[in-house]
Amino acid sequence: MEKQPNIEVCLSPELYHLYDREDVNVIIVDILRASSSICTAFMNGVKEIIPVGSISEAKSFKERGFVVAAERDGQVLDFADFGNSPHYFTPEKVQDKIVAYSTTNGTKAIQMTRNSKNIYIGSFLNLSALARELINEKLDIVIFCSGWKKKFNIEDTLFAGALSKQLMDAGIFTNDCDSTIAAIDLWQLAQKDIEAYTKKISWLKRLGMHEVLEYCMQTDITPIIPVFENGKLINRTASNK
Amino acid sequence: MEKQPNIEVCLSPELYHLYDREDVNVIIVDILRASSSICTAFMNGVKEIIPVGSISEAKSFKERGFVVAAERDGQVLDFADFGNSPHYFTPEKVQDKIVAYSTTNGTKAIQMTRNSKNIYIGSFLNLSALARELINEKLDIVIFCSGWKKKFNIEDTLFAGALSKQLMDAGIFTNDCDSTIAAIDLWQLAQKDIEAYTKKISWLKRLGMHEVLEYCMQTDITPIIPVFENGKLINRTASNK
Repeated sequence: MEKQPNIEVCLSPELYHLYDREDVNVIIVDILRASSSICTAFMNGVKEIIPVGSISEAKSFKERGFVVAAERDGQVLDFADFGNSPHYFTPEKVQDKIVAYSTTNGTKAIQMTRNSKNIYIGSFLNLSALARELINEKLDIVIFCSGWKKKFNIEDTLFAGALSKQLMDAGIFTNDCDSTIAAIDLWQLAQKDIEAYTKKISWLKRLGMHEVLEYCMQTDITPIIPVFENGKLINRTASNK
Repeated sequence: MEKQPNIEVCLSPELYHLYDREDVNVIIVDILRASSSICTAFMNGVKEIIPVGSISEAKSFKERGFVVAAERDGQVLDFADFGNSPHYFTPEKVQDKIVAYSTTNGTKAIQMTRNSKNIYIGSFLNLSALARELINEKLDIVIFCSGWKKKFNIEDTLFAGALSKQLMDAGIFTNDCDSTIAAIDLWQLAQKDIEAYTKKISWLKRLGMHEVLEYCMQTDITPIIPVFENGKLINRTASNK
């Protein structure tokens, strides 16, 4: 019998070195807000997204005429066109444009996972489309949760559970990984009343981001699959057609 | 109003630097098997346990006449008196003795957490006694899960959830930490049928350790609280009387 591909969930960027391999599909997850914003940007017609790390790099993209999305500590940077929340990425702002998206964690995540086979961006918005793609490819999977200040967070773990559940239901994957098992269980518990459950998220209470969360928890509103190739994020669905 | 002490769960030793502070009580958890074995040893009358790291250090304790418990990769080392499982720590072997206990992870955990206020050893065997002690002390708490090969594991997380639940029920703590919330939820889910739940633990399937697990999942069979002081583990309950 052929070896079944395995699903692993990496609960924090600080743990990724324990999962780092070349032959895996990595799904980068940052439900609040990077991965949800990236999916939204492609839904609204962005051509490409260039993830940039430092503020100075973002500034240099602005000077070269790119649209720039950049925030630090929840504040839109003065030279930027807009910030990091999904609602900024409207068709008026992003359609047919190349957007430089400055996010320290997101850019670091892409750097860390660059040895993997493919790097996909996952959010609830494109959950089932992404699951179908991963089922087609039949590779080992590492779901990379961005977490909150490098710690475990609930919303990324719930997404990891939701995605793992869909993959397991397809019958071709194994989940020989305690964090995958736990993420699926948390997801099945939470999905009974997702609104009540996500009210428990500790850092959201502090930041009052519940409106953004409501948007980001919508499931399957797009078939788009952002993938990182040659230094930028493009739409795999579109590029394959 | 006085600030309520907080409960944080550190899901892997690789994350501990994010939690490391001086003013906290740390609970070291390694359900399979170190923390369960240490509690068992005190139940059976051990005088002190000296945690040692390297094999050569363990050997030198043996040469100086100490009882030595030491394993590597599941095999009892040839110079050792016995291995690391709880069933080795019988009254015949340990009563009134000082035991040198060689465990790479356990010793590293104690090293990592040495800046904290107190270092306690937690297992299901002494769950409620430990909870009562922590409730008395009213300090911030970090539950240090040893994990499996530095990754998240289910059994340590379930214990973290069980302990956090007892502390939260006392009404004086907060759980402003996503991993504490998730650990409590997993524990509440698992405790409905703990035997079925722990069958899911991925690495146990590989090692066939279910018999040891059954012993280690027994709750409240001892009021003993092992605490690390001056380079060794002693019984806090006894030492205070």
